[in-house]
Amino acid sequence: MPEEAPVPATLEALEGLVEEQRFEQASDLIKSANPADAADALQGLDPDDIARVLGAQETGHTADVLEELPDDIAAKTLVHFPVEQAAKVVRELISDEEADILQELPEEQREAIIGSLDEEQQALAREMLSYPEDTAGGLMQKEFVEVPLRARAGEAVAMLQARAEEIASYPAAYLYVTDNDGVLKGILNLRALLFSAPETRVVSIMTKTPVTVSVEMPGEELYDLFRRHRYLALPVVDRHGVLRGVVTKDDAMQFEIESGEEEFLRFSGIAGGEEVRDMPTWLRARQRLIWLVPKMVLNVAVGAVIAHFSGVLEEIIALASILPIISDMGGSAGSQAIAVSIRELSLGRIKSNEVAWVFGKEVGVGVMNGLALGSLLALGTYAWKGDPTLSLVVGGALVVNSILAVTLGGLLPLFLQRLKLDPAGGSAPILTMTTDVCGFSLVLWLAGYLLGHLR
Amino acid sequence: MPEEAPVPATLEALEGLVEEQRFEQASDLIKSANPADAADALQGLDPDDIARVLGAQETGHTADVLEELPDDIAAKTLVHFPVEQAAKVVRELISDEEADILQELPEEQREAIIGSLDEEQQALAREMLSYPEDTAGGLMQKEFVEVPLRARAGEAVAMLQARAEEIASYPAAYLYVTDNDGVLKGILNLRALLFSAPETRVVSIMTKTPVTVSVEMPGEELYDLFRRHRYLALPVVDRHGVLRGVVTKDDAMQFEIESGEEEFLRFSGIAGGEEVRDMPTWLRARQRLIWLVPKMVLNVAVGAVIAHFSGVLEEIIALASILPIISDMGGSAGSQAIAVSIRELSLGRIKSNEVAWVFGKEVGVGVMNGLALGSLLALGTYAWKGDPTLSLVVGGALVVNSILAVTLGGLLPLFLQRLKLDPAGGSAPILTMTTDVCGFSLVLWLAGYLLGHLR
Repeated sequence: MPEEAPVPATLEALEGLVEEQRFEQASDLIKSANPADAADALQGLDPDDIARVLGAQETGHTADVLEELPDDIAAKTLVHFPVEQAAKVVRELISDEEADILQELPEEQREAIIGSLDEEQQALAREMLSYPEDTAGGLMQKEFVEVPLRARAGEAVAMLQARAEEIASYPAAYLYVTDNDGVLKGILNLRALLFSAPETRVVSIMTKTPVTVSVEMPGEELYDLFRRHRYLALPVVDRHGVLRGVVTKDDAMQFEIESGEEEFLRFSGIAGGEEVRDMPTWLRARQRLIWLVPKMVLNVAVGAVIAHFSGVLEEIIALASILPIISDMGGSAGSQAIAVSIRELSLGRIKSNEVAWVFGKEVGVGVMNGLALGSLLALGTYAWKGDPTLSLVVGGALVVNSILAVTLGGLLPLFLQRLKLDPAGGSAPILTMTTDVCGFSLVLWLAGYLLGHLR
Repeated sequence: MPEEAPVPATLEALEGLVEEQRFEQASDLIKSANPADAADALQGLDPDDIARVLGAQETGHTADVLEELPDDIAAKTLVHFPVEQAAKVVRELISDEEADILQELPEEQREAIIGSLDEEQQALAREMLSYPEDTAGGLMQKEFVEVPLRARAGEAVAMLQARAEEIASYPAAYLYVTDNDGVLKGILNLRALLFSAPETRVVSIMTKTPVTVSVEMPGEELYDLFRRHRYLALPVVDRHGVLRGVVTKDDAMQFEIESGEEEFLRFSGIAGGEEVRDMPTWLRARQRLIWLVPKMVLNVAVGAVIAHFSGVLEEIIALASILPIISDMGGSAGSQAIAVSIRELSLGRIKSNEVAWVFGKEVGVGVMNGLALGSLLALGTYAWKGDPTLSLVVGGALVVNSILAVTLGGLLPLFLQRLKLDPAGGSAPILTMTTDVCGFSLVLWLAGYLLGHLR
């Protein structure tokens, strides 16, 4: 239904009320707000305060607000509820949100809450928790309508009318026809159902070989499937063809958005693809070290190359000022190529075996930009030291290093993907170490070789 | 309608047929495939070949396939069609796709094709082209149903039935009630309309103050709006309240996915946020130089710092091997903090004025990791040179540099955002230059100061 604009609850207002321990008024403020605005405002409070404000709310509204909070904050809030009340709230959550939030709870609380649910709900919760988060099983919902295979149109319509309010919030406008074992046999279109005579058997109206998705399908494939076709929702089945849930296009797109964010974090060295500043400091520090320590080891290799040529450096100390320029330009040019490759791979514009094509495309850019930057460096060096041989050495090294950096940068994501490793996390460190080692070796060796000419 | 799985057309099959100039058969292969699969297969061909294969298709199918191709390839293909035929195809495109593809055409062809459309369509095309791509105006579609203010329910239903097939593909399940000037007055829910007596005036059924979106609303705000509310589509109005189009949640999410990808590219130094390897090499090289040349200038500043301390370096050449380690560790630790800040800003978990909070959160990590890495470096240096003062100098410099890097890295995105600059593109270069200059200055000055102790 089209909505009319509601009254906003703000973080400032809530913080004020919470400071004065006026939880009743805080609760009233939240009650009138729409769940997403309420969640936004509450997010800034400590979880135990959020729990106090929500605790007085009607369970359904509390569930709505929890669904809008980030999963980790929702879980931390739920921990402060008495187990019975927490279980009541959990019962009201949409199935996939329920799974996401339960996942974030400490095991003890999770078991306690699940234990407070009735048998059927316990089974459902455990099933949802069994699917990895980044698969169709982890993204799907349990909110769908099943129609028995032997039913007639009239019975199906009657079922819909009886459950009308519950169904109004379901994602799919289809009904799923299943046999006694729950195996999906066909899909009923709502319009077709309503326009059929009541005694018609559903088997004669339904689409018999519908497109389905396996519970194990990775999230990226799911997004690709929805992107290529006009589906709004798809049924999710297990290995036996039993209907387990429904996954929507929105779910797939939301997953894609989050995947992109995680990839960006992994590329920048947050190894798990996830860091929230609410996490304990030692945990955040440790997660970041996972990337920093190996990086340091790689840098020691680079330092060893320079140490090897210390004699040359002592002779031409000017080179020490130029090495960082060569290093950073190689890393920067290579990063550009890495990013374009990662993007083209994820868009499906290239496959991981199109090595020759990517090489050809990058080598041209490497030569052009290498020459441009190498000339700049050579001119700058000449202006500084007035030494033509030195200028040519550093300029030439930068040209070669640029070409190496962009071709390697362009190809690394392809190689890593073929090896089933993470292109986003691995490409940049490998690139910078390689270009540094090669760039420095080239400059220092060449300078050493031409030392006679430079002195 | 739930689909049954279709026959795939493959790039290999198409390439084979195209090589043998068997465009008729290639065309047949495409005809039986679903548009997204056809587009995927065709993507690998040269645009003039794509045009030959599609040229024999029925216009509607050609349009469907063009909608599935990336906009730039669709435009390059369209360029090879005779203007009359191109205009026919353009007429069949969904309005926002039409605008996206026309945008990619060279001006001459664009004008020629628009000129071949009838007056009303010309006006529509020009209007759509006038909106920036990253606003509601650029993301919306023109496919919606308008109902006059003075109409009665029966008339509205009759209009729907008369245009049933066209409307079946429209995104929104609402009708938009407008006055004589096209100003949006209310929204009609389909169900409410069908359940009302035919003589009821629509004004009494419609929602009178619907949520609307301005044509100028930035895409990110749009995504945020859809994320917080359960809307599936929203009406887009101009400054006079005239209804201009409809924007869907899918559109907003797709924009968010693409924004994330562009941000990743900008972060990696692709200044425009967009590079496709099909672009001419010189163009790609030039776009990358836009970031590389300023970077080089910043690096010269770093080189100048080292040059300033060349005396110290000549004395303790071992420092030359250690400088790259300090530099890269600073840049790496800083990148991690930058990425977390960019993420938290875009998720709305922090605002750009929460400087003290971010500082506090980062300084802890900086101290912990700085001590960890600094100790490693000190130990390694001692193992190499056996000089305790040197080891403490470099280890201490790394500790200080780490703390600086993560606090600056955490705060830079906030500062840039407040200055309305691009946090993704600007943070890393500023960070690395600052940490290099500070890190090197610290090590070299300290080493120079303690020179007496080290010799």
